[in-house]
Amino acid sequence: MEYQLPHCETLILEKQGPSLFLTINRPDVRNAMSLQMVAELAALFTEVENDNSIRAVVIRGAGGHFCAGGDIKDMAGARGQKGEGKDDPFYKLNRAFGQMIQQVNESSKVVIAITEGAVMGGGFGLACVSDLAIAGPTAKFSMPETTLGVIPAQIAPFVVERIGLTQARRLALLGLRIDAAEACALGIVHQVAESEEQLDDMLNQALERVRLCAPNATAETKALLHRVGHEAMTGLLDDAAEKFAAAIGGPEGTEGTMAFMQKREPKWAGK
Amino acid sequence: MEYQLPHCETLILEKQGPSLFLTINRPDVRNAMSLQMVAELAALFTEVENDNSIRAVVIRGAGGHFCAGGDIKDMAGARGQKGEGKDDPFYKLNRAFGQMIQQVNESSKVVIAITEGAVMGGGFGLACVSDLAIAGPTAKFSMPETTLGVIPAQIAPFVVERIGLTQARRLALLGLRIDAAEACALGIVHQVAESEEQLDDMLNQALERVRLCAPNATAETKALLHRVGHEAMTGLLDDAAEKFAAAIGGPEGTEGTMAFMQKREPKWAGK
Amino acid sequence: MEYQLPHCETLILEKQGPSLFLTINRPDVRNAMSLQMVAELAALFTEVENDNSIRAVVIRGAGGHFCAGGDIKDMAGARGQKGEGKDDPFYKLNRAFGQMIQQVNESSKVVIAITEGAVMGGGFGLACVSDLAIAGPTAKFSMPETTLGVIPAQIAPFVVERIGLTQARRLALLGLRIDAAEACALGIVHQVAESEEQLDDMLNQALERVRLCAPNATAETKALLHRVGHEAMTGLLDDAAEKFAAAIGGPEGTEGTMAFMQKREPKWAGK
Repeated sequence: MEYQLPHCETLILEKQGPSLFLTINRPDVRNAMSLQMVAELAALFTEVENDNSIRAVVIRGAGGHFCAGGDIKDMAGARGQKGEGKDDPFYKLNRAFGQMIQQVNESSKVVIAITEGAVMGGGFGLACVSDLAIAGPTAKFSMPETTLGVIPAQIAPFVVERIGLTQARRLALLGLRIDAAEACALGIVHQVAESEEQLDDMLNQALERVRLCAPNATAETKALLHRVGHEAMTGLLDDAAEKFAAAIGGPEGTEGTMAFMQKREPKWAGK
Repeated sequence: MEYQLPHCETLILEKQGPSLFLTINRPDVRNAMSLQMVAELAALFTEVENDNSIRAVVIRGAGGHFCAGGDIKDMAGARGQKGEGKDDPFYKLNRAFGQMIQQVNESSKVVIAITEGAVMGGGFGLACVSDLAIAGPTAKFSMPETTLGVIPAQIAPFVVERIGLTQARRLALLGLRIDAAEACALGIVHQVAESEEQLDDMLNQALERVRLCAPNATAETKALLHRVGHEAMTGLLDDAAEKFAAAIGGPEGTEGTMAFMQKREPKWAGK
Repeated sequence: MEYQLPHCETLILEKQGPSLFLTINRPDVRNAMSLQMVAELAALFTEVENDNSIRAVVIRGAGGHFCAGGDIKDMAGARGQKGEGKDDPFYKLNRAFGQMIQQVNESSKVVIAITEGAVMGGGFGLACVSDLAIAGPTAKFSMPETTLGVIPAQIAPFVVERIGLTQARRLALLGLRIDAAEACALGIVHQVAESEEQLDDMLNQALERVRLCAPNATAETKALLHRVGHEAMTGLLDDAAEKFAAAIGGPEGTEGTMAFMQKREPKWAGK
């Protein structure tokens, strides 16, 4: 069965082997995140979750920018509407973005963010939920919300999870803009490329690693990592040992150890 | 109404625009933290909390040292007194310091620490609850408690929050003394200045950012950051979305987005 | 009473003053961690806990490697056995390792890891629970589990505690191998030595610090550090203040402050 990529207005999708390349495509507004884009990203990650042929999702922006944050037009539109509490259009707009971010964070796939140009507000938040983030030489990161009189409500919590309270409080409270080298030192991104070629090399090396890692074991490992700090360690380790036993006795563990003994690549690495 | 700074014996206070400059002033004992100083800091931060004209509090020490830790004389005085459990004078002395630290940590203002010379024990703890810490070239950081047979009881927890368990265990268990560069690499401070002039420049740049950021949005953002990791993410994001809606529909959000459209500075940035 | 070191098949033990030097000794298999080694480490750390003459435990591997992870033969042996749930031999094998790691993590002694050569899988996990980790120039770190179709079940949680989710997800999900410099930048190790001599110097400097720090105060401090983030801050600080009062009024606090006044070394520093 051939995988059918969903039709999207704001995203360009391309599948190459086990990798889905997702390009945010509103270059005229530096890929500002509209309500429609949020909805399309959420729908896409729901589909991807059920697609065993996909192991990695690579997110980047068209036209040299990753994503400049929330769309001002959607904000203006919401201002004209009525509603209170959870029916407030601003509440719904803001929370829908956060739900999508949570979904990407917890995706069972390896999520790779290629950050270039503007990585602001919502774009900053999206970068912060990737498993691997690589910055190009032009990348600039910021949470400018407080300079606009608003708060980085759905973003700041993921920034704290990403880089810790100490660095998050400086960045968020001063609305600072930082470059790729500082973003790497703080742990927002994992690697900085000095050129387009190096960026491609780093991405290809990561995808080569994805190829060699067993898909289900990777998904189980990711789910495990997300639980640390949210539950008691002893119970977590008990449960993890059950998952270890299931993995080593299951198809991937059997194939993986056999391939290791036989000094060959495991089947899942097949190109 | 003109703001009336409280009278303090151990602190020098000076207000410049929206910034309160607080100088710890016991230079003859390298600004060791006495019971009176703890009481004055606590009273000051209570007053500051209710003062809308203050947006930033800049803490530094007189005479080239930030703060060398607890005052030995207070310790000796406590040794002569009686009391058990929560009436133990050592308990009260220690806990009062920790309560002040908690209060500074959760202050709704932007707290900036200028660390120079001795930044030890209680002084180390105070530096660790700032939103921005800048180190001068002479700064030395340490938790020497265990070399004295005691424990960094009210300090170590904030050091773990500041730099994580991994680095805190090395520093606290070996009672190490580190310089500004290492303190910056570990995240105790955010920036290191190589000269007095650079220190002033870094501080002025930070205060310029404070000027551009909306005061209430900043306070709301800081409160949000402190909640991450202490409650479930989904509920936190629900609540944050309500705060976002309130902010964008409120005076700061209205003014901020209007100023952005009109390409002018928002009112709160007025000098 | 002379301390009697337990007899071990897989470990070489040597006591020098207050330090126990523990060498993992299966160099023919790069010190791969067997069931027996796990049992011996667990038994040893139980004994050490009750031995007041020991203040530091230094762990290193024989033959230039720290530890290459789980023993393949044990895995093969477990595959032949039967059992379900917590009787599954893979479950027991895996969980026993994790229990030992938890025990080392919470040891009241200062645990120092000297990491060289292969620091993989279980060896990586063991390095991550040390109070101080020093890497030699040859050290390579990795969690290769997912490339074998299994998961780093008992290791990944301690890696997240060690270096945070952001870096752990990249390392674990891509099964990367990193060198000493990168391990130090990420916080897996605290220091990197460029030669054997420098490695010895760094270790000796650390042991000199252990000598100067009061043993009980160190143990109390370590226990306190481990509680941060797992309970509410206010209650933790209340309890810590009680421990501070007990320490300063107790033998170590009395001796430590007196030695400080008299400008001499405290008794516990006696060689």
